[in-house]
Amino acid sequence: MSASRMRLIVSVPGGIGNFGPGLDVLGCALTGARDEVIAEWSKIAGITIIDAGHPQLPTDPAKNTASIAAAAVMRVAASRGVRMPNPGIAFTIKKGLPLSGGQGGSAASAVAGAVAANALIWPVDSGLNSGLTQNELLACALEGEEAVAGRHLDNIAPSLLGGIVLVRSLDPIEVVKIPAPENLRIVLVTPAQQLTTTKSRSVLPTEVPRSIVVHQLAQVAAIISACHSGDLALLGRAMDDRIAEPARNPLLPGFADAKQSALIAGALGVSISGAGPTAFALCDSEITSAKIGQAMRSAYARAGLDCTVRICEVDTQGAIVKDA
Amino acid sequence: MSASRMRLIVSVPGGIGNFGPGLDVLGCALTGARDEVIAEWSKIAGITIIDAGHPQLPTDPAKNTASIAAAAVMRVAASRGVRMPNPGIAFTIKKGLPLSGGQGGSAASAVAGAVAANALIWPVDSGLNSGLTQNELLACALEGEEAVAGRHLDNIAPSLLGGIVLVRSLDPIEVVKIPAPENLRIVLVTPAQQLTTTKSRSVLPTEVPRSIVVHQLAQVAAIISACHSGDLALLGRAMDDRIAEPARNPLLPGFADAKQSALIAGALGVSISGAGPTAFALCDSEITSAKIGQAMRSAYARAGLDCTVRICEVDTQGAIVKDA
Repeated sequence: MSASRMRLIVSVPGGIGNFGPGLDVLGCALTGARDEVIAEWSKIAGITIIDAGHPQLPTDPAKNTASIAAAAVMRVAASRGVRMPNPGIAFTIKKGLPLSGGQGGSAASAVAGAVAANALIWPVDSGLNSGLTQNELLACALEGEEAVAGRHLDNIAPSLLGGIVLVRSLDPIEVVKIPAPENLRIVLVTPAQQLTTTKSRSVLPTEVPRSIVVHQLAQVAAIISACHSGDLALLGRAMDDRIAEPARNPLLPGFADAKQSALIAGALGVSISGAGPTAFALCDSEITSAKIGQAMRSAYARAGLDCTVRICEVDTQGAIVKDA
Repeated sequence: MSASRMRLIVSVPGGIGNFGPGLDVLGCALTGARDEVIAEWSKIAGITIIDAGHPQLPTDPAKNTASIAAAAVMRVAASRGVRMPNPGIAFTIKKGLPLSGGQGGSAASAVAGAVAANALIWPVDSGLNSGLTQNELLACALEGEEAVAGRHLDNIAPSLLGGIVLVRSLDPIEVVKIPAPENLRIVLVTPAQQLTTTKSRSVLPTEVPRSIVVHQLAQVAAIISACHSGDLALLGRAMDDRIAEPARNPLLPGFADAKQSALIAGALGVSISGAGPTAFALCDSEITSAKIGQAMRSAYARAGLDCTVRICEVDTQGAIVKDA
């Protein structure tokens, strides 16, 4: 790539937040649909949005997750006295991920915004290895995510880094990459149902009984062990979320049936992706994943809901910077 | 070993339960002190205790953790129609671990009792690989532990298997061995203070705020990752228990000072072992462990408490059956 780019594209995967029992702490990037931000220098100060990528997304830079994240990067650059060739950056957003529904779309756009601004301001070989540190990029992307979906990094971190990521701490930010087991297939099913993150978070319990806490601690620990050892059956058994899933189940018509149907079709484990309504099922082969997709589609149909089905693997690339 | 032993010795390590934030789910066996059970066939039906190993320990087989566990094994043998050469088993217990205090003594004796009965009844090459399955042995030992310390396997499982062990599920029993990082040194400090497990458990919160749950999930996940990757610094940072430690701190004079002093002396992380009052500190070298031991001893002395200090490694052997 040229040393002084005027224009570039950042492509970022979505994925699963609240990975099973890993409420707010475990996320997984997925292959397939991605959000893109085309960024170019602009004579207009700050971040401008030429195209928000969808009629329902705000073009007001103070409200769009990508521009909020990018503005945070510009603020850091200004605080370090970086001389920019132009007063502002203009974004054209291409929304490959759904606007909402639990596929990590807001996080992907926030990461794309932060990485795009970083790569434009610090134009060296790799946008990710120059300018801001990984944790600074996460902090800037978090500003964007926080404005629309809440203060958590479990979608942000895998969207930036790829793979399965544990958020050990938010203050200070510390994330840990966890190996993704080979052969893991993820069936992502989004029923045609409106459910806001705000509504979905509002039903989470403010207090959790200690026996449930102990259960949840054990499952999250088992997930990490299973990822390291490649034990997919253990990974599946550990997808036993007793905090968010029981609370959200009443908001999700068809989910309980879809889960049961997926397990019968060979899924190793099933849970809700992010704040829902997207559900995900884990399995170990292409053939089984197709059966699971069919079974879940039929289950949602019985609840009167159409759905989209994606068969994915764990995305290992994370955010990518390309010449435009 | 002979194929029809009349007498054998089982030696079992103690260790840390509630390993840091891993309340009831993570434990670690430690080198050094061990409990032993000498078991021999007896004309008296059931389990008899010739010597309980300490004046304060019950010789009534219905109340002693080792004999309760062994009786559970005999019950399984009887239910399978195993013909035993004698109607009963007699135990001579040698108590190397403290009776209480958070070093896993009750669990070690329970495991020793179960393994001893198993090895005597099914006399093949290795007592652990014959007769009861691993999970059946855990269930029998759990009966002993439950009678004196509560229904949890976080001390039982590492005492049987050695190493660091995750208890994913109690019903059904499922435990997962986690690799122990090389170079890990554990400083185990027991102040001369009486604190019953009952009292120590009674102060645990029945409900936990969700923000604390999220924190605790992240730390337990980080511990597992750190053990797999050998990242001792991460392991230390993850020893940040915000459920049991804050609740028990008021019961533990000197602990807060000892923790702070250990961290200043180079400890990577410090927490309470089991239900306390034993504290443990993690570090990565022999020299640092000695410094930490000194610093913690001084801190407890300032609180008017003598203490015993043990420098340990992770025990990787677990329960051992030997000829008597």
